[in-house]
Amino acid sequence: MAEQEPEGRAAARPLLTDLYQATMALGYWRAGRAQDLAEFELFFRHCPFGGAFALAAGLRDCVRFLRTFHLRDADVQFLASVLPPDTDPAFFEHLRAIDCSGVTVRALPEGSLAFPGVPLLQVSGPLLVVQLLETPLLCLVSYASLIATNAARLRLIAGPKKRLLEMGLRRAQGPDGGLTASTYSYLGGFDCSSNVLAGQLRGVPVAGTLAHSFVTSFSGTEVPPDPMLAPAAGQGPRVDLATLVEAWLERVCAHLGLGVQEPHPGERAAFVAYALAFPRAFQGLLDTYSVRRSGLPNFLAVALALGELGYRAVGVRLDSGDLLQQAQEIRGLFRTTAAQFQAPWLQSVPIAVSNNIDEEELARLAQELVSVGGQPRMKLTEDPEKQTLPGSKAAFRLLGPDGTLLLDVLQLAEEPPPRAGQELRVWPRGAREPCTVQPAQVEQLLQLWVQQGQLCEPLPSLAESRAFAQLGLSRLGPDHRRLEQPAPYQVALSEKLQALLHRLSAGAPQ
Amino acid sequence: MAEQEPEGRAAARPLLTDLYQATMALGYWRAGRAQDLAEFELFFRHCPFGGAFALAAGLRDCVRFLRTFHLRDADVQFLASVLPPDTDPAFFEHLRAIDCSGVTVRALPEGSLAFPGVPLLQVSGPLLVVQLLETPLLCLVSYASLIATNAARLRLIAGPKKRLLEMGLRRAQGPDGGLTASTYSYLGGFDCSSNVLAGQLRGVPVAGTLAHSFVTSFSGTEVPPDPMLAPAAGQGPRVDLATLVEAWLERVCAHLGLGVQEPHPGERAAFVAYALAFPRAFQGLLDTYSVRRSGLPNFLAVALALGELGYRAVGVRLDSGDLLQQAQEIRGLFRTTAAQFQAPWLQSVPIAVSNNIDEEELARLAQELVSVGGQPRMKLTEDPEKQTLPGSKAAFRLLGPDGTLLLDVLQLAEEPPPRAGQELRVWPRGAREPCTVQPAQVEQLLQLWVQQGQLCEPLPSLAESRAFAQLGLSRLGPDHRRLEQPAPYQVALSEKLQALLHRLSAGAPQ
Repeated sequence: MAEQEPEGRAAARPLLTDLYQATMALGYWRAGRAQDLAEFELFFRHCPFGGAFALAAGLRDCVRFLRTFHLRDADVQFLASVLPPDTDPAFFEHLRAIDCSGVTVRALPEGSLAFPGVPLLQVSGPLLVVQLLETPLLCLVSYASLIATNAARLRLIAGPKKRLLEMGLRRAQGPDGGLTASTYSYLGGFDCSSNVLAGQLRGVPVAGTLAHSFVTSFSGTEVPPDPMLAPAAGQGPRVDLATLVEAWLERVCAHLGLGVQEPHPGERAAFVAYALAFPRAFQGLLDTYSVRRSGLPNFLAVALALGELGYRAVGVRLDSGDLLQQAQEIRGLFRTTAAQFQAPWLQSVPIAVSNNIDEEELARLAQELVSVGGQPRMKLTEDPEKQTLPGSKAAFRLLGPDGTLLLDVLQLAEEPPPRAGQELRVWPRGAREPCTVQPAQVEQLLQLWVQQGQLCEPLPSLAESRAFAQLGLSRLGPDHRRLEQPAPYQVALSEKLQALLHRLSAGAPQ
Repeated sequence: MAEQEPEGRAAARPLLTDLYQATMALGYWRAGRAQDLAEFELFFRHCPFGGAFALAAGLRDCVRFLRTFHLRDADVQFLASVLPPDTDPAFFEHLRAIDCSGVTVRALPEGSLAFPGVPLLQVSGPLLVVQLLETPLLCLVSYASLIATNAARLRLIAGPKKRLLEMGLRRAQGPDGGLTASTYSYLGGFDCSSNVLAGQLRGVPVAGTLAHSFVTSFSGTEVPPDPMLAPAAGQGPRVDLATLVEAWLERVCAHLGLGVQEPHPGERAAFVAYALAFPRAFQGLLDTYSVRRSGLPNFLAVALALGELGYRAVGVRLDSGDLLQQAQEIRGLFRTTAAQFQAPWLQSVPIAVSNNIDEEELARLAQELVSVGGQPRMKLTEDPEKQTLPGSKAAFRLLGPDGTLLLDVLQLAEEPPPRAGQELRVWPRGAREPCTVQPAQVEQLLQLWVQQGQLCEPLPSLAESRAFAQLGLSRLGPDHRRLEQPAPYQVALSEKLQALLHRLSAGAPQ
């Protein structure tokens, strides 16, 4: 099964739940309420990272989980082992029979903008089943949304054209933490990931070249079994790349004012080895030894040797020090070297940087650089709601005539939806007075994805959701899109919902 | 296979690696170096959370990963799809054949104290294979160690006797992030987890009772299909628990000076339903409505009714507000109520608290409370080393006559180990002068676990490693164990290693 459905193994398992969901299930069952219809909503109270928006993500994982949800014998036996020994065996028979055939899911489409208080997910079905689903669905949506939001923020800083590479796997929170982070960084706006499994299982574009350890593993005395490389066009004799590089090194060092013995021979051997394996995708990692006196001349020698054979180096990477200053210096040297050797393509070789790049550093770098590798920061600030708005709700997004977002409205499920062109009186959350709004367009936010356990429409692909997220962000006003001290985006309640809330909070004990 | 080896599905997969490990593998292969013997070490530079120690963890996951590591056809095909199309097919044949039969692993035993610069893990084997293993092993060890360290810190704050429950799954970093966090919180010193899957797959004790949603789902008008409960001893007639609770409620309200209509009837119905399902494990969640006017009297009525039947309530839980102040007030009311109704067992009913408990809050609570639910904070501060000490190393821990830790020594693998009772001259890292130390005992830190792919000795169980971790912490001096502004624990280099390092850093380009 794992082979037939490769994503299956990465999915959450039914017992990935808090034990109290199982003890409550027994409580409901004992109270005769297992089949009561219930609904829960998942939303957040505060936007993460101090921003005014979040991206909704994780729906695909939720749907995958729901569609295969059932308790195997081993699962039920384990639950029996941690519940009281005198528990009625009929309860376990009940557990063996449950699945999600009675479960309905409404949710924001994957990649939607999401705001505080607006449900990301509404799940309804038999009380006992819905209870068991709560923890895994929370787990799947919270983290995915957090990562996607973080990625979207970094994308906003970098602008639409910079290439953003996620490479956080080494520091990820366990294997699946890494898979999830890579997947949803892509959804939120990154271009690719270093995580091969995310490529294999989720279709995320993958990228990667070489590490410092590759460079240091060469001393310069190695003799490659086959140092010969054919020209890019396939015509002409094969050439000994190592020898050609040595010839270029002399010319490069003379141009840069360096002694030919200064560049590290092991680094050069590593670059030659990499170039032999990847003649069409040669990238130099410049900062293993000295960038200026070793990494750069070695890169230039290999790149110019490859260039002589018709190949074009694809870039360099810096992974330490003042990334911006070095990148600017390197760009200057690329220009003079390109002029010196009549190699104009060298002027624009991409400079990639990595190493602990956070929002602040990215903002500084984004002015100058084309490609940045980062890792999402794991600052989990979502605050799962403890008090919820009452009743089943519908949610709508109101837009102005130019397509920008005005506000989101929550109302009772039975109310008629707002209509384009009609005035509407709503209560912004936290405000003491209602306000009037006249939307030019109205979008229904919560879409029906699963009804009685059946998928209602195909889920968009990850790449489609990624594009959808960027579209949404482009419609958000700059005041709300701002990453620091943004203006909060308004979420408002319909008059009926506001009145119901008012009644309930007046009547409820504190 | 998943069923036969339940942990198998939770293990990391071979392609959970950075693409550059695969591109470097191709580079090495093309350079004729795939079979070169290589070693990498995993260590950290700074202790996380501002402390002076870390716990080593994740070895079990590493061993599990290594033992099944091989690239399936689908994996190799995927790699072929992201490497250059003209890559020599012999490289992919090579990939199909690799496994860990040539890999050797030395590591700190699971749960060991670990200090900056001392390897947690040494992995040696064929260069190409070792390169592919690097990212997954880093991922498995880093996060596990971080979580275990965090748990150990919270355990130190709480003291040895308080019950610590990990319940972070809802906010965990994806499904496996949650499984890993629950597993290694236990290893680091927590008592149990809410995560059922961690119980099923890893043997972590699990715990859980009920949530606010269970309480609010009852209105008080529900009629349980069977409200009858037999006495605990099994003798005597079954009693209608709901009716008995109502009788007790009057007495409790009179004692507390409350009107009998004040406690919420839905909350009471929820408590009765839970008590019917768990008469021997009844716990009240007190803060859904008002603790003082509803949760507490409802709990007392149910607990005293159960008490009349010979059952003892196991506790209450608070999940909001000033946890300490409320807990103190409740303890006082337990005492007066116990006296009023001649129910001495009520005096000592455990009070559990939960809700965003961090180190600071725990320190405040630990003075008073018996049981605390928390979640590990995900502050990832480990800094993967970029420059490493040269050569294959051995590591020893030197102890004083009373068994306390003196310092750790790193030396070259070929040096003879330090001996108990003998003076030793070492160079503390960062110091300009050597120092002399005379250990009463010497422990070898890095043990051989896997040799040429074969497990050398059985891994300890998770519970054994948990006990080992607590033992280690008890031997660490209080200055180093302190959580804030601790005295750094010394890691020293042997004279030979110091000299080698000195030579290399003098000779190497910057």
